[in-house]
Amino acid sequence: MSVQHNEMNTTDLAIMREKINKQLEALILRLKAPKILIEAMAYSLSAGGKRIRPILLLTTLEAFGKKMDKGLNVACAIELLHTYSLIHDDLPAMDDDDFRRGKPTNHKVFGEANAILAGDALLTYSFELISSIDEPHVTNEMKIELIQRLAKAAGAEGMVGGQTEDLIAENDPSLTVEKLENIHYNKTGKLIIYSIAAGAILAGATEEQLTQLEQFGYHLGIAFQIKDDILDVEGDSKKMGKPVGSDQLNEKSTYPALLTMEGAKRKLTDHLQHSLRYLEKAKINHDKLKQLALYSINREN
Amino acid sequence: MSVQHNEMNTTDLAIMREKINKQLEALILRLKAPKILIEAMAYSLSAGGKRIRPILLLTTLEAFGKKMDKGLNVACAIELLHTYSLIHDDLPAMDDDDFRRGKPTNHKVFGEANAILAGDALLTYSFELISSIDEPHVTNEMKIELIQRLAKAAGAEGMVGGQTEDLIAENDPSLTVEKLENIHYNKTGKLIIYSIAAGAILAGATEEQLTQLEQFGYHLGIAFQIKDDILDVEGDSKKMGKPVGSDQLNEKSTYPALLTMEGAKRKLTDHLQHSLRYLEKAKINHDKLKQLALYSINREN
Repeated sequence: MSVQHNEMNTTDLAIMREKINKQLEALILRLKAPKILIEAMAYSLSAGGKRIRPILLLTTLEAFGKKMDKGLNVACAIELLHTYSLIHDDLPAMDDDDFRRGKPTNHKVFGEANAILAGDALLTYSFELISSIDEPHVTNEMKIELIQRLAKAAGAEGMVGGQTEDLIAENDPSLTVEKLENIHYNKTGKLIIYSIAAGAILAGATEEQLTQLEQFGYHLGIAFQIKDDILDVEGDSKKMGKPVGSDQLNEKSTYPALLTMEGAKRKLTDHLQHSLRYLEKAKINHDKLKQLALYSINREN
Repeated sequence: MSVQHNEMNTTDLAIMREKINKQLEALILRLKAPKILIEAMAYSLSAGGKRIRPILLLTTLEAFGKKMDKGLNVACAIELLHTYSLIHDDLPAMDDDDFRRGKPTNHKVFGEANAILAGDALLTYSFELISSIDEPHVTNEMKIELIQRLAKAAGAEGMVGGQTEDLIAENDPSLTVEKLENIHYNKTGKLIIYSIAAGAILAGATEEQLTQLEQFGYHLGIAFQIKDDILDVEGDSKKMGKPVGSDQLNEKSTYPALLTMEGAKRKLTDHLQHSLRYLEKAKINHDKLKQLALYSINREN
């Protein structure tokens, strides 16, 4: 199995990104809210994210032979929620980052109060969006399951808990790879798993398929995080949109720091292979999901 | 109609508060999350709030002849969400308050990062809680409606938008009573209306009853806010748990400042009378809701 070649059809990606970006823009523009709040929300939403999570959802839907438009609103809800987490993580009291994706962070442009409020509004809107889906194929039962799983993935037992642990770990000299993996599982892994699971739920997957796809997402999520850490050391700062080596400067615990660069790359390959094995077990038309997995660990930013 | 006497049966209130407090405690203790995050969430939840919103929900349910236990989880979801809004509002970047209800604010005890995260987790948990209700009388349709309405009341078009407007208004010399009323409608009114509407939805109210009760909540919410402003000038700082006159010190726009104290009190009575007129039109057993309305505008803190 080659992990060196990026075989993703970039036209597919561009089409999905275009759909997602258009829908996100429409969702924000229809809000009747204070101008500065809408601008702050729109600013971070349109800051050029890769849209990996919504693309994972749409590609999973397609793998079940469903039209991707059926998942567009849930895909956007995930991106709204992901964007809120970036805005709050960047705040001075948290990671205190001035730049993200090459642009000044939200609080640098709109001030801390508006950045906090824009994050709060994006988080809240993600739940409104799922509850408001009005399409015949999305049952109330599905909506409830999608909301419940999203809240669990994003809340105290998921992303928010992971960010709390991450802030504690920054000053923990006894951090192990196991602890780091658990932090990432909560902080980023659960939302990646959710993105895939949400596509499967909307497609009417069996319990067995859902379980296999969650394992696919689990290993993909770890691989994705290791790749992030590697790029922070080896990446091109122009492509990254932030100074390379910033994690080291901030004394952040990373896979290369704990395992050496060679060890981190070996671990990346291991998790990728694991993820692809689970993907095959899901017995769906998985070619594009496989390409997406390979693409996401061969990316340059 | 007398608005001078508080006829609320305080034993009823104490029983409801006890139920709500016990359930809130159980909800937090069952979380598997970092210790400091749970402590920060629990700290503000147990800081001695009046529980007006959940009590409104439970009392509305009772007015329809339903058992209040049926609404306990939605009532707690509202209190989780309300508590998140207090924690974020108190942050240095927002209202910068050091005390609330006589205790140091969340960020003073746990630091800004944990306060932001505790708020995020409480907000997220409120949606998880409603989606997780597993009782035969609460249909999926009801849960979806409760989640959708809560998100609208709390998000960019509701509470978060209102807080954004409030921060802008602090430096606005041209603020009118109409603008102030709109800010409060968004910032606090919509969640009070939601508390009543949620009880009605859980009780299976007709559309007509729901409309009348929302109007009851609208006027009660304004009366409640005027009372807050009056207490800030005339209240006993020991009972309030914060320095009296702090709104004036912070140059906040208040009803007494815009209308004189006498004008504010007249407006309070007007809105209370309006609210009670709508309450009567709902054709339910409204005695306790009426007592609760009178109690909430005769309170001393």
